[in-house]
Amino acid sequence: MASYAKGLEGVVAAHTSMSFIDGEKGILEYVGIPIGELASNSSFEETVFLLWNGRLPKHGELDEFSHKIRSRYAMSPALEARLMALPKKAEPMHVMRTLVSSLGLDDARPDVTDVPEVREKALTVLSLVPTILAGFHRYRQGKPLIKPDSNLPLAENFLYMLNGQRPTPTMAKAMDVCLILHADHGLNNSTFSARVVVSTMSDVYSALTAAIGSLRGPLHGGANEGVMVMLNAIPSVADVEKFIQAKLEHKDKIMGFGHRVYRAYDPRASHLKVLAKQLAHDTGNSALYEKSAKIEEIMLREKAAKGIYPNVDFYSATTYHCIGLPLDLFTPCFVLSRVGGWSGHILEQLSDNRLFRPSADYTGPHDVRYTPMNKR
Amino acid sequence: MASYAKGLEGVVAAHTSMSFIDGEKGILEYVGIPIGELASNSSFEETVFLLWNGRLPKHGELDEFSHKIRSRYAMSPALEARLMALPKKAEPMHVMRTLVSSLGLDDARPDVTDVPEVREKALTVLSLVPTILAGFHRYRQGKPLIKPDSNLPLAENFLYMLNGQRPTPTMAKAMDVCLILHADHGLNNSTFSARVVVSTMSDVYSALTAAIGSLRGPLHGGANEGVMVMLNAIPSVADVEKFIQAKLEHKDKIMGFGHRVYRAYDPRASHLKVLAKQLAHDTGNSALYEKSAKIEEIMLREKAAKGIYPNVDFYSATTYHCIGLPLDLFTPCFVLSRVGGWSGHILEQLSDNRLFRPSADYTGPHDVRYTPMNKR
Repeated sequence: MASYAKGLEGVVAAHTSMSFIDGEKGILEYVGIPIGELASNSSFEETVFLLWNGRLPKHGELDEFSHKIRSRYAMSPALEARLMALPKKAEPMHVMRTLVSSLGLDDARPDVTDVPEVREKALTVLSLVPTILAGFHRYRQGKPLIKPDSNLPLAENFLYMLNGQRPTPTMAKAMDVCLILHADHGLNNSTFSARVVVSTMSDVYSALTAAIGSLRGPLHGGANEGVMVMLNAIPSVADVEKFIQAKLEHKDKIMGFGHRVYRAYDPRASHLKVLAKQLAHDTGNSALYEKSAKIEEIMLREKAAKGIYPNVDFYSATTYHCIGLPLDLFTPCFVLSRVGGWSGHILEQLSDNRLFRPSADYTGPHDVRYTPMNKR
Repeated sequence: MASYAKGLEGVVAAHTSMSFIDGEKGILEYVGIPIGELASNSSFEETVFLLWNGRLPKHGELDEFSHKIRSRYAMSPALEARLMALPKKAEPMHVMRTLVSSLGLDDARPDVTDVPEVREKALTVLSLVPTILAGFHRYRQGKPLIKPDSNLPLAENFLYMLNGQRPTPTMAKAMDVCLILHADHGLNNSTFSARVVVSTMSDVYSALTAAIGSLRGPLHGGANEGVMVMLNAIPSVADVEKFIQAKLEHKDKIMGFGHRVYRAYDPRASHLKVLAKQLAHDTGNSALYEKSAKIEEIMLREKAAKGIYPNVDFYSATTYHCIGLPLDLFTPCFVLSRVGGWSGHILEQLSDNRLFRPSADYTGPHDVRYTPMNKR
């Protein structure tokens, strides 16, 4: 019998040719390309093509791929009707999970496991999730929904549908970079969930629904909201030292620091830090950035020797805030991006499937008899 | 680096004190009690109490537990409205997944991870899923919904809501036994999915939604529908030998045979076989049973030496058919039962949690540069 690795730490559960992580050195590559190069030069659409095809697209290929995505931005009337019937107080991650699940209701062929056809379905979900999220946010505010603009890239179109006006180029670029940075990250919990579910030869909606449910947990994608809550709880940069020291003394977790995989600076965080600083300056949120930077300074002093560094959530909080996103849309924005990675892993799983069916160690009693009620 | 166990076969991924499986000997016990004893003597409600509490209930405890379940049969107006807005052609498993997910929309405190409170939420889902399933089946047929009868146990009430009339005692008992037999089974894929998802400290709705998505796959709960399709494809018992031999020659999978864990007769199948035979006789479906028995006879002759025996799906198909359930409700009926096991595992996971975060072996290229578009 194999030994028990709690949380499957160190257990290799799948092969992937999408992202490579060296946690000791702080390296993340998508198909061999360092994440920083992609963040600086690529777009979210191109990055998804890269992940799904194992290479960068040629000019015509990227046009075709982007065109397909843009042509699928709009919700069907059935989907829009379901959105408009939601309780306005619902938490956006429950909405994302439920409405992505509901796409299986309308699909006349949800059960296909043929890779090219699943890829098309995944692309439709990728194209739709920004519309669902922006639509729900406007609906709950009592504002009219904004129709998608198929002339815009996915990130820019999302901010347009959310706010009813085109974002500045800096905002659109920041959103796009966030989507690139969050698109894939090995066998993180939500990606693993998607692969486990689809390994029964279930459908792409079931797998993506499971992944959204996983991502909302505070030990996963929910952490970026926790960072913002913490930042809001600190009145000013002058209060940071006292706040963090008190947390450390109580052995409280500092949100946005430490990662199961990284024992070095998360390469996504280093890119986001630069982005957050610039955006904070442009949007009059420099005080927020300064608080973040001060927290990092203290944490590096106290915890870097233990391999605890800022993770992707830490500076994404400031970034999302500066883009103007409300707190409870932070984790759903993670969904918009990670649908790319999840789908790629679903395709990899279907290409070489074996049902995930681990063992459990039984720790209960043995040889028990059914005792009739009157003898208990 | 750990070796790669494809599908995590043989890897211990969790501890559990609910079900014990000895696949070589064909033993399944819930908390130490052989499954056959429970099927013969217990009820579904009592079995769920056993799984969640590690012991059989005393008289007053069972009354209280059953009363709680019965008091939660009814859908909220919001849930019923969502059901009545579904597309009638939707596949019932997509409906189950979507409506269970939607329960998170209405819950004012969906995020609690405190075990007693999560247990209450799980009990509500357990009580509601029969109402959702029966309600959708009537709605899609254009029939009025039947209000639940809180005087009836869960299995009997389900058949009452489905058909609009009380089932015979034999039918009610058969449904109850099916629920007992399917309630828990170690770290099967859907149960594992639920534990993986909730390990991010996400919520009970996310975890149960993921499990439903997993269960619908043909390599998991979807298999019982496959058995029925096969039985329907064989005109009579005289055609079985030729049909099966042709399948075996083409190395086609015979639905309902073989199991990752069992290398012996699945103890649930042996109990279901007796039940199926009696029910088939009572309901004029003996020819169906005879076809099943003949398939088993051939398969045991051809494949028992390789450890391939009937699994739980094989005779549950005949049983469900004799109860009068349409084909596409077979797998959803599995949900009604397994919600008990899934929830127990969610509670176990939360009691001693560690995030599931395995590793992936990266098989793609390294040291790739981002090539500008005009150089590709």
